[in-house]
Amino acid sequence: MNAVPKTFSQDGDYKIADISLADWGRKEIDIAEHEMPGLMSIRRKYAAEAPLKGVRVTGSLHMTIQTAVLIETLKDIGGDVRWASCNIFSTQDHAAAAIAASGTPVFAWKGETLEEYWDCTLSALSFPDGKGGFLGPQLVVDDGGDVTLLIHKGYELEQGDESWVNAPAGSHEEKVIKDLLKRVAKERPGFWTTVVEGWKGVSEETTTGVHRLYQLAQDGKLLVPAINVNDSVTKSKFDNLYGCRESLADGLKRAMDVMLAGKVAVVCGYGDVGKGCAHSLRAYGARVVVTEIDPICALQAAMEGFEVKTVEDTLGTGDIYVTTTGNKDIIRLEHMRAMKDQAIVCNIGHFDNEIQVDALYASGAVKTNIKPQVDKFTFDGGNSIFLLAEGRLVNLGCATGHPSFVMSNSFANQTLAQIDLWANKDFYDNKVYLLPKKLDEEVARLHLEKIGVKLTRLSKDQAEYLGVPVDGPFKPEHYRY
Amino acid sequence: MNAVPKTFSQDGDYKIADISLADWGRKEIDIAEHEMPGLMSIRRKYAAEAPLKGVRVTGSLHMTIQTAVLIETLKDIGGDVRWASCNIFSTQDHAAAAIAASGTPVFAWKGETLEEYWDCTLSALSFPDGKGGFLGPQLVVDDGGDVTLLIHKGYELEQGDESWVNAPAGSHEEKVIKDLLKRVAKERPGFWTTVVEGWKGVSEETTTGVHRLYQLAQDGKLLVPAINVNDSVTKSKFDNLYGCRESLADGLKRAMDVMLAGKVAVVCGYGDVGKGCAHSLRAYGARVVVTEIDPICALQAAMEGFEVKTVEDTLGTGDIYVTTTGNKDIIRLEHMRAMKDQAIVCNIGHFDNEIQVDALYASGAVKTNIKPQVDKFTFDGGNSIFLLAEGRLVNLGCATGHPSFVMSNSFANQTLAQIDLWANKDFYDNKVYLLPKKLDEEVARLHLEKIGVKLTRLSKDQAEYLGVPVDGPFKPEHYRY
Amino acid sequence: MNAVPKTFSQDGDYKIADISLADWGRKEIDIAEHEMPGLMSIRRKYAAEAPLKGVRVTGSLHMTIQTAVLIETLKDIGGDVRWASCNIFSTQDHAAAAIAASGTPVFAWKGETLEEYWDCTLSALSFPDGKGGFLGPQLVVDDGGDVTLLIHKGYELEQGDESWVNAPAGSHEEKVIKDLLKRVAKERPGFWTTVVEGWKGVSEETTTGVHRLYQLAQDGKLLVPAINVNDSVTKSKFDNLYGCRESLADGLKRAMDVMLAGKVAVVCGYGDVGKGCAHSLRAYGARVVVTEIDPICALQAAMEGFEVKTVEDTLGTGDIYVTTTGNKDIIRLEHMRAMKDQAIVCNIGHFDNEIQVDALYASGAVKTNIKPQVDKFTFDGGNSIFLLAEGRLVNLGCATGHPSFVMSNSFANQTLAQIDLWANKDFYDNKVYLLPKKLDEEVARLHLEKIGVKLTRLSKDQAEYLGVPVDGPFKPEHYRY
Amino acid sequence: MNAVPKTFSQDGDYKIADISLADWGRKEIDIAEHEMPGLMSIRRKYAAEAPLKGVRVTGSLHMTIQTAVLIETLKDIGGDVRWASCNIFSTQDHAAAAIAASGTPVFAWKGETLEEYWDCTLSALSFPDGKGGFLGPQLVVDDGGDVTLLIHKGYELEQGDESWVNAPAGSHEEKVIKDLLKRVAKERPGFWTTVVEGWKGVSEETTTGVHRLYQLAQDGKLLVPAINVNDSVTKSKFDNLYGCRESLADGLKRAMDVMLAGKVAVVCGYGDVGKGCAHSLRAYGARVVVTEIDPICALQAAMEGFEVKTVEDTLGTGDIYVTTTGNKDIIRLEHMRAMKDQAIVCNIGHFDNEIQVDALYASGAVKTNIKPQVDKFTFDGGNSIFLLAEGRLVNLGCATGHPSFVMSNSFANQTLAQIDLWANKDFYDNKVYLLPKKLDEEVARLHLEKIGVKLTRLSKDQAEYLGVPVDGPFKPEHYRY
Repeated sequence: MNAVPKTFSQDGDYKIADISLADWGRKEIDIAEHEMPGLMSIRRKYAAEAPLKGVRVTGSLHMTIQTAVLIETLKDIGGDVRWASCNIFSTQDHAAAAIAASGTPVFAWKGETLEEYWDCTLSALSFPDGKGGFLGPQLVVDDGGDVTLLIHKGYELEQGDESWVNAPAGSHEEKVIKDLLKRVAKERPGFWTTVVEGWKGVSEETTTGVHRLYQLAQDGKLLVPAINVNDSVTKSKFDNLYGCRESLADGLKRAMDVMLAGKVAVVCGYGDVGKGCAHSLRAYGARVVVTEIDPICALQAAMEGFEVKTVEDTLGTGDIYVTTTGNKDIIRLEHMRAMKDQAIVCNIGHFDNEIQVDALYASGAVKTNIKPQVDKFTFDGGNSIFLLAEGRLVNLGCATGHPSFVMSNSFANQTLAQIDLWANKDFYDNKVYLLPKKLDEEVARLHLEKIGVKLTRLSKDQAEYLGVPVDGPFKPEHYRY
Repeated sequence: MNAVPKTFSQDGDYKIADISLADWGRKEIDIAEHEMPGLMSIRRKYAAEAPLKGVRVTGSLHMTIQTAVLIETLKDIGGDVRWASCNIFSTQDHAAAAIAASGTPVFAWKGETLEEYWDCTLSALSFPDGKGGFLGPQLVVDDGGDVTLLIHKGYELEQGDESWVNAPAGSHEEKVIKDLLKRVAKERPGFWTTVVEGWKGVSEETTTGVHRLYQLAQDGKLLVPAINVNDSVTKSKFDNLYGCRESLADGLKRAMDVMLAGKVAVVCGYGDVGKGCAHSLRAYGARVVVTEIDPICALQAAMEGFEVKTVEDTLGTGDIYVTTTGNKDIIRLEHMRAMKDQAIVCNIGHFDNEIQVDALYASGAVKTNIKPQVDKFTFDGGNSIFLLAEGRLVNLGCATGHPSFVMSNSFANQTLAQIDLWANKDFYDNKVYLLPKKLDEEVARLHLEKIGVKLTRLSKDQAEYLGVPVDGPFKPEHYRY
Repeated sequence: MNAVPKTFSQDGDYKIADISLADWGRKEIDIAEHEMPGLMSIRRKYAAEAPLKGVRVTGSLHMTIQTAVLIETLKDIGGDVRWASCNIFSTQDHAAAAIAASGTPVFAWKGETLEEYWDCTLSALSFPDGKGGFLGPQLVVDDGGDVTLLIHKGYELEQGDESWVNAPAGSHEEKVIKDLLKRVAKERPGFWTTVVEGWKGVSEETTTGVHRLYQLAQDGKLLVPAINVNDSVTKSKFDNLYGCRESLADGLKRAMDVMLAGKVAVVCGYGDVGKGCAHSLRAYGARVVVTEIDPICALQAAMEGFEVKTVEDTLGTGDIYVTTTGNKDIIRLEHMRAMKDQAIVCNIGHFDNEIQVDALYASGAVKTNIKPQVDKFTFDGGNSIFLLAEGRLVNLGCATGHPSFVMSNSFANQTLAQIDLWANKDFYDNKVYLLPKKLDEEVARLHLEKIGVKLTRLSKDQAEYLGVPVDGPFKPEHYRY
Repeated sequence: MNAVPKTFSQDGDYKIADISLADWGRKEIDIAEHEMPGLMSIRRKYAAEAPLKGVRVTGSLHMTIQTAVLIETLKDIGGDVRWASCNIFSTQDHAAAAIAASGTPVFAWKGETLEEYWDCTLSALSFPDGKGGFLGPQLVVDDGGDVTLLIHKGYELEQGDESWVNAPAGSHEEKVIKDLLKRVAKERPGFWTTVVEGWKGVSEETTTGVHRLYQLAQDGKLLVPAINVNDSVTKSKFDNLYGCRESLADGLKRAMDVMLAGKVAVVCGYGDVGKGCAHSLRAYGARVVVTEIDPICALQAAMEGFEVKTVEDTLGTGDIYVTTTGNKDIIRLEHMRAMKDQAIVCNIGHFDNEIQVDALYASGAVKTNIKPQVDKFTFDGGNSIFLLAEGRLVNLGCATGHPSFVMSNSFANQTLAQIDLWANKDFYDNKVYLLPKKLDEEVARLHLEKIGVKLTRLSKDQAEYLGVPVDGPFKPEHYRY
């Protein structure tokens, strides 16, 4: 059982649960390095050159063992790094301890309140200027876009537009952010303007965060160049798909020890994440029902033998619900009221608004905590449901997230994106960029040897026949893999 | 057993194996219509409007039952259609008979010689002008690009560039084409120029043919606007993937009645076609080895649990070889010599040059015909291999190709592409276009009801949150499905 | 297309469709021998010894290419063999031709009438005595028990019990049998008594036939020792399961070319055959619903993720129905009337009474023959269904049955059973025996090398720890595999 | 992290880690009851009748949440129950706490030493006689046979046969047992004779324990009637197969967070446990290699597409090793030395001697503890392996064992066996019995409703045709499911 920490280790420039876990964290980091060949290869390749030498980098990304390997890679190639988690439940406390112990400022523990979470985010982007004040990051590694949001909103306020900050908050979290911005406005006037002046770019790795970036860019409001890491093939078709195929069941098992065989599992959304989830659950012998809005994805689900229905049609038969959509209000209060007794409800999408958690709390249902991240809600009628990780990412809240090997792909992309952003800081516009296919193929290539894959090589003659270079890239841009 | 026809039915403006098979063909067309809801829905929608009214359309596409439904759709929306198959083995003779019997000129039978094949192609694009001469097509439905090739090469010759026609042929087929062009040059001077004057567009549905089109466009030589139907999601992620998942094993079984369980099957290439083949063979209990040149696809194969090696590494253990690459010289003569005794070798890519068939014929190996499309080659050493369909598409040569439902997706795209090309004939440049995502989603939508899929609908609120229209399109252009 | 033969080749002691197919048959027998390592190994081992030297053997078993290898094995070890098929549609005419051409009396063709079928069975058990009369078989190889039934019923009649023969027939087939027995009673008085005097044993390989044998034994009516080949592990867990996993889809594809992905397939029964069928259909992307009477098998289906319902609950949604039960009246006329338009109905159990075919014929539904073994029945309401192989084994009626490799296991058991029966003819009682586990393991062992399996060997120490011999048998009798 | 307890809660007649965990344990027991419909149904059915009223029952079975439901079922039907775990790592401390808190004597905690373990076993079978002495159990619920072993060995000693006790011990555990017996001989002379006088039967649920029982019975040494629960279909084909399919990956993930996709996993043994493991790992995208001694199981593995080799052949390529055999010395020291760096080695068979753990400890390899139940051993050469749960059951040592639903099947069989043993205590011989098929089917039936299965019912006519009762049992004894 992982309990919410009551006391913190914060002797240095960090705030974490327990520094005594550092040794254990270090042992697991050692194991993870072995499982992250692509990221380690990039670390080795660029260590001497140090392309991020002295660059201030803020990361907002689940503070796990794998992320520790990313952090130490960014440092080894020169970065001056500060870090926070991007989810209140996703920190592995021993990972944070190992990072803190090695001297990197980190602000993260498992089971933060929302107020603590946003304070941590602020700490992560506040680089002491040596004169008692703060500088901001020059580069941001983002996952979900919270750092990007905070900077944009803070800057907007300092530019004189108070409309958003003063508008009534639509959720508790929104209120927390607004309160924070008001406090910063008092305590550090002009801070966000300073931050924006120094900020050169952001790389973002989640569908949801990327979506926000495209909207900012479309509205002409994006303040820096951005690299969409999510849509590298070696990210979206690996982390989202294969990562979730491994970590969803892991979260369900650690939380509920439930038998999946014979159960009716409802997977909301059949994008890459939904595909990974649906196939994993079926492999366990669950009968999977998919819900979809997109006819193409729905037809894909049907071609794979999944029944495609609406959430409403599953109420009373569904045993397990998983949201994977990136959209909000997928599982609504009225759904939860009508579910089979002891149905399990969880989310593996980036934000917790896929399930109407606020409405559930306000519904009068009696909440019984079973263990951390597992709550039972009993409705008037007597039937109850289990909500995992309070609606936040179940694989990170109830287990340890994706395994190292797949994260090596994602973080290799992140690292290459950071290097690229800095190298091109004077050439890029405030737009959203993708990494070139050549790099995407390189990331894949760096992972093959570890798992014993032997590639075939094109002959010159064959390459000419295909009209591609002998060493790639091999596919047209629109190729879907 | 389907035998090479010695006599033909050719009383009308057609050349087929046996007109007496028309009734049987019609019965199967009736069944297929039931399984092709998308295509039939488009037929019904546009029949009154007749957007192709009087337009001369030449099709070069496997003359199967499913294609018959496409042909009759093109006719019902106004087209003046002539048809040939795009492969010497892919015609279903009863399908051709039914089409001929209904008055559509069709030139196709199972087991054509290469000379006959190209004559058929010429017949399909020769519309009688009523004055003893010929007009060409205004639109072309192409699969593999043979009609497009012939027109381009014929036109090039009439423009005075004789270099290609007079160069030594690299293969027997190339010689056949050159001989044909020389004959046409004599018999119908100026024919290709007339054809090109009237030609307004081509829609192409195979990876290989699309590849040719992009090369022509890149070289500035493309004579008409082209629509790349292959890369509609509802084509490449359905026909290529799910179609092959069903039809590869069908071809292998009809040809060899072989047990797949326990065999080592080598799938060359892990694109959409390779993915479908590899998963099908594994589901039968075969142990599948994949070969790849592209590190991303190789990593995908490994993540699905397939061993990835080179062809060379499998010699002696591989029982079944399938090429799916779109590339040439994948299975070479030296490979075949070194294979396990009685290995089965086949291809499901568009062209037969994936296997070195010519070299095999010239190798001195003793050929024993087992039944049509199944030949045994015995080498000096005494070991032998089976070659299916002479290296041509095994699913069409040894079975009946993809099933109706998946072809309904592909042909719905083809039909929409033809309508679009004609509607925009005055606006499009001589480039390669993709159909808009909206149409792609529409094609999928038209297939959902038949298989009982119930879509979820976005609320207005959700659509705003996502920043997409309530009715789609739902995904960004770079989305990979 | 395989057509019902109008003329027969019957120059010698055989009756088959077309002797000119013998060469083709021989080529395929050669291929099959390569795929039947266990059976060929037994052939080689016992050829010199000839344990069945001069023994009269009647076989009633699907006259396929694989059976041809069995027949020639029985001959090579000394047997004097006569053969008939055990199903009107299951003969491969080129296999029968090759067997006839090699001098073995065979009476079988694809598409027999029931009258012809039972005449063939009689011919197969009538060994000319050289004096114008007939002797019966000394051993019988049975599949479904038709030869055993005929002898028992004939003998019962000659013993003076006319009750069965004179009772009204419950089906057309029953009437055919009774008519035959009456005719034989006239033409060959005392024939069955002679047969029974010489008869020493029967080996039976199907669940249904074995069931009949146990009932006869239980009633004290079994006339000879019998070996239950079906329940050798290397038969029931291989032929029934893996055989059907390969041949069901083959039958469906050759008959209907239907897309299986996205369809709702209803598999009636989840025994070994049903398990093979259900897993095969799911692998194609069909959504499989199982029906069961046995709670254990039903729970197994549920644990594998299949929905378990009644046939009634699937009407209107099921696209494909497959019966696998060994029971009768599974798909009833009222079911067929209520099915989704163009549903496909077929059976893969031994007898055709799993589907109420007689009732369907008598129902007034309009029958349209699409091609051999594919009939469409249209009901008053306008909806129609497809019935495959007239309700007989779809894998044998519409395709070529199980592939060679798996049949090598079954037929190795059959051959060992025949040898055993003859060797122990003076020791066995008129009971049903199983082959010893040692032989079962031997059959498996003979198939491993061909597919590259490398066994681990127990050390003496390990064998002692387990309390089993180093070379097996390794498992207790009740072990289920 | 679960740490070895330094202090115990032992205020009452129990010895457990921490009584304060009782509330949490109770909440999880409540959840489990919902997931164990068969066991709860039997509890309700027999509660009034109380067939075990006052009967002393000793259980030696993993002290998990699921076992808590079994214990409370045995109590509700009248039993006087004492309990110990049957593995040093398999106790869930909150489950033990809840049981202790409810007044049942329980002696178990996670991380016992072997000395503690056998002391606990002794405590579980020592029922205070109210006069300062002890009575033994009347019935035993055994898993692995440790209680049965202890009683037999103790009795043998009291019968005057000191040969075993005085022989040199072959392992540390053997020494612990011998020391215990010597101590008991001093402290409680005649104890075992008293125990045996009152003992009426044992039900045993594991392959290994059953194997021991058959050997005792064969040698004429079995002291009581025994019921083999393991070979109820609803045990061996469910718990062993589907249980391991869920819990192996769970153990691997909680221990190592390792990516399974792309890894080479070697599963030693392809019995029911091995089948569950192999299919689970493949579903994650691992490439699974199977090792086997039994040609039938090896052929099954090959038919499912697994490569079958020896352990030796996988050294250098295998990433994960799992033993499932019930045999000893499967993974030997020389194997571990030659494994790929950072290979993971674990066991899911009942005893830890499948891996040569003792030899590993004595090898000089440097042991680094990563976290409880995860140790890294580094060899001279520099390469290292991870050993999970010290070679004991990885699913119980590193995760929480099988999920509730499947254990409901096993424990329903255990409960029915206990009732049966007591009811027939005057009729049974000292042999090993199986539960009748009728009860096996009943156990399955009790689990169907919970997961929405709807059985089909035989008509009277169909039942007669099959020759089985309308309500079953439906299959012959030799049927394998």
